[in-house]
Order: sequence, then C-alpha cells, then structure tokens
Amino acid sequence: MSDTRPIGIFDSGIGGLTVVHEIFQRLPNESVVYFGDTARVPYGTKSPRVVEQFAKEDIYFLLRQDVKLVVAACHTVSSVALDGLVASMHLPILGVVDPGVKAALEATGNNRVGIIGTRATVHSGTYEAKFRAKNPDVKIFSKACPLFVPLAEEGWLESDVTRMTAEIYLEPIKEEGVDTLILGCTHYPLLKKVIRQVMGESVVIIDSAEETAKQVARRLQLIQMENAAGNPPSHAFYVSDIPHQFQEVGERFLGDRLGNVTRVDLDTVH
Amino acid sequence: MSDTRPIGIFDSGIGGLTVVHEIFQRLPNESVVYFGDTARVPYGTKSPRVVEQFAKEDIYFLLRQDVKLVVAACHTVSSVALDGLVASMHLPILGVVDPGVKAALEATGNNRVGIIGTRATVHSGTYEAKFRAKNPDVKIFSKACPLFVPLAEEGWLESDVTRMTAEIYLEPIKEEGVDTLILGCTHYPLLKKVIRQVMGESVVIIDSAEETAKQVARRLQLIQMENAAGNPPSHAFYVSDIPHQFQEVGERFLGDRLGNVTRVDLDTVH
Repeated sequence: MSDTRPIGIFDSGIGGLTVVHEIFQRLPNESVVYFGDTARVPYGTKSPRVVEQFAKEDIYFLLRQDVKLVVAACHTVSSVALDGLVASMHLPILGVVDPGVKAALEATGNNRVGIIGTRATVHSGTYEAKFRAKNPDVKIFSKACPLFVPLAEEGWLESDVTRMTAEIYLEPIKEEGVDTLILGCTHYPLLKKVIRQVMGESVVIIDSAEETAKQVARRLQLIQMENAAGNPPSHAFYVSDIPHQFQEVGERFLGDRLGNVTRVDLDTVH
Repeated sequence: MSDTRPIGIFDSGIGGLTVVHEIFQRLPNESVVYFGDTARVPYGTKSPRVVEQFAKEDIYFLLRQDVKLVVAACHTVSSVALDGLVASMHLPILGVVDPGVKAALEATGNNRVGIIGTRATVHSGTYEAKFRAKNPDVKIFSKACPLFVPLAEEGWLESDVTRMTAEIYLEPIKEEGVDTLILGCTHYPLLKKVIRQVMGESVVIIDSAEETAKQVARRLQLIQMENAAGNPPSHAFYVSDIPHQFQEVGERFLGDRLGNVTRVDLDTVH
C-alpha cells in the first residue's frame, strides 16, 4: 500500500513551519502542502466561531490540493475548533495540542507540568481541560509569554534580551517544581535553547511540533496511507499574503530553504 | 460658534488611545468617540486596498455617532489610505503622519531625522516621500522596531529588557547623528522614557500623538468647530472585539480609566 498524496498543513501564519520542519525530519518520503493564512493572522484574538470558519476555508483550500491528511498546526485552531472540524470533514485531521498532552503525561514523574503559550492559548484553558480529562492528579502551571512570538520572528534566538525575557516568564513556573514543560506555541521551538538554559537540564521540554510529527507518522502507519514509493517528495507553500521579510523569517522557522511560495488571493479561498 | 459634536478617532487596535490621551490634555472641552478595530488588528500586514476598505468601515461607524472630525490614529491608514479617504468623505479627516513630519521639519537643525515605527510603516517609505516633498535636503534614517509594540502592550515600560532592546534598535540611528527622532507608531509614546535615555537629552523626540492633538486643535479653531460650550464632555469607546487584558492594556495607553467600552459586532460595521 502506498499513498503518494501530500500531507496538508495549515496555520494562521508561519509558525506552523516548525511542524513542517519536524515532518520533513521524521517522514522524508512524504510530500507536504502548507497553507499560512498570513493575511488574517493572528487567529488568537478572534472568536471561536470565526476561527472555525477560517480553519474550514484553510482546509477547503488544502482539499483542492488533494491532501490525504490535514494537520492544524495552529494552537488556536487546535484549542477552540478541532472537534468541530474533525466531525465535519471526511479526512483525518490532527491538531497540535493532543500530541503535547500525551507526551507530557508520559514524561512527568511528579505530576507537575508547565505550559507556555500565547495569551489566547493560556486563557482558553484547553490544556487544563485535556489534562483533567486524562489524569486529574496532574497539576498544571501555565504562563502566557507574549514576547516570545515577536522575539522568534525577529530572530533574536540567543540574545541577552531573549534570555532575560525567558527568565522573567519562566522563573515562576520553575519555582513550582515542574518536571515537564510544554512549548504550547508553534513559534517556541526556535527559542528552545534559551528556554532549556533557564529551566535547567532536569526538566523535560515537550516540543509540540516534534510530538505532532510523531503522531502524524503513527496515524499514517495505522491507516496505511504512508508513501512507500521510491519517487522523491515534492513540497508546496501557499500563503494568503507575503509580508515584508516573509522569506527570511519563514526560512528561520522551516530551518531550510523555502522554495516555491505562492500567494493565494483570499477571495479564492472558499 | 460652538459645535458640541464629538471628535471621532479610530485605530486598528488600542494604540490610538495615546492620541486620545493627548486630545484629552489639549482639548478638555471636546467629547471623543473612539473605535478600535481589535477584531481585525493588525492593519500593517494587509494590502492598501484592504486597509482603505477597513478604514472606510471604521469611519462609517464614527459617522453614525455624529462626529464632526475624524482622526485616523493609525500609522498604516495614515500612510497608505489617507488621501483616498480625505477625497471621498464629507468631513475633515486628519492622520498621524503629517503632524510628525511638520514638527520634525521645524525641529531639525542639521537636517538629519530619525524615524522609528513598525516594519509596515518603515517599509512603506511614506515618511521619506513626505520629507522629500517638503524639503529634499533632509536626510532620513529609519528603523523598524517590531518588539516595541509587544513590550508596550506587556507593560514593560522601564524594564531592563526594554532598555536593552531600545539600545539594539536605536544605536545605529544615534550613530548617524540625527538631532530629531519621530516616534512613528502610536504605541511608542509609552516607551518615551527609555527611548529618551538611549538617544540622550540633545535629540528632539517628536511624539506623533502629541503633534496630532495639536493639529486637531488648530483645525477645529480654523473651521470654527470648537466646543466652546460650558457643558462637560462625554466620551465613548467602541471596539470590534474585547481580547483578554483589554481593559488593563487600554488604560495603560489612555493613561486614565477606560470607562464605558462597548463591543460592536463587526457585522454591523458597514
């Protein structure tokens, strides 16, 4: 059995490229079609109804590219709209929240887990609800880190500014004695080195992008949709707008050359 | 002659509240109606066509509140759409770019002017074009400071993180020997103290919010639309969405209590 169709991945912007990076690492045979809704970023400040509508439009676009599976590489969509999308679409859809929760439950020894993300993600309470459903004994310590996204986009990955910011955000979580920390935002893997330095070596850092790629691999195997063919994969990147420095910032997130980026007019995304 | 109708002020989000703050200082008799399009923020990443369309919708909303004059308290709108708006609307409309340019031209002695703003504002080249039109001898040194907006919204107004960030952004402009610096973003007045420390006492800092309020005062006087009546002003604040911490962040920008904020459904903003 071999399914050569691409994996579809979408995000409100470019953050989801860290998930693409991990999928490239783990599933080198698979083709990828990425859609970043850069014209309507951010989703985090919008209502759940609007987020679900935008996500559907993003998925319809990917469906027209004949994808076999969709990854909602966006914490906002995964937090507030995933159940509705899974129920209404006729193909497998994975989010970025569940893989991190699963990995954290396996990793924690003392049942004290930290979660960092955008204000929208932290205040949605989605992570807390997921943990409560799986293991009510796990105690969650969450912290919104609004400066991490612009620091990652600015490329100040190991700057003193970033280190000092990380100390301010992370010290309160560290003091709670968490043994596991979930990076609950697709931008944060870029800051992993600084976050590791502040949290110390003993804390397990769960990279949602990495865990999502693992889950995609498991799912493709389970439903026998892997691309086992020998032909090389081909990738395509679509965005709804190309802001200044998009190429440079995008390549930092992808960790690779970002070839073949096409702007899709929002009017055609129905 | 006395015109008791309110001044209408709009922005893509809450940054324009710094302009409201200055209007309160300078024109204590005037009532203000503010509209922040928080559901569609930011405008800076959107195309000029879309920005003009959004700005028109914002103005139509203000017109329904019977305003006598409109301030586009948004650098993106003022940069890319103001001429079209002024031409198509039947009331006075002022932006935030021209007042800063005017003040800088009056202030500079050595014709070396620095401009800081968002990536969108800096790369639009609007300031350069305006200076060239008025005085081609003025040399412009501009720098995008993407972290200043989230630092202002986070409230880290005098943090070491902010000081260090300001040094990284501003040193190159300072080294060019500018004697005048325009704060080309409505968020930046909150960081004026740190910006002043980095630039030194000898550089004139032009606060666009302050200069815009001055120009509003001049215009109202010129067209005899001041409110000379004794009745106290009343203010109203409308937003298209109320994100988490809106009240707290908004009050930091306004420098005052933010009473009476009403969410207007985007569907009704036509």
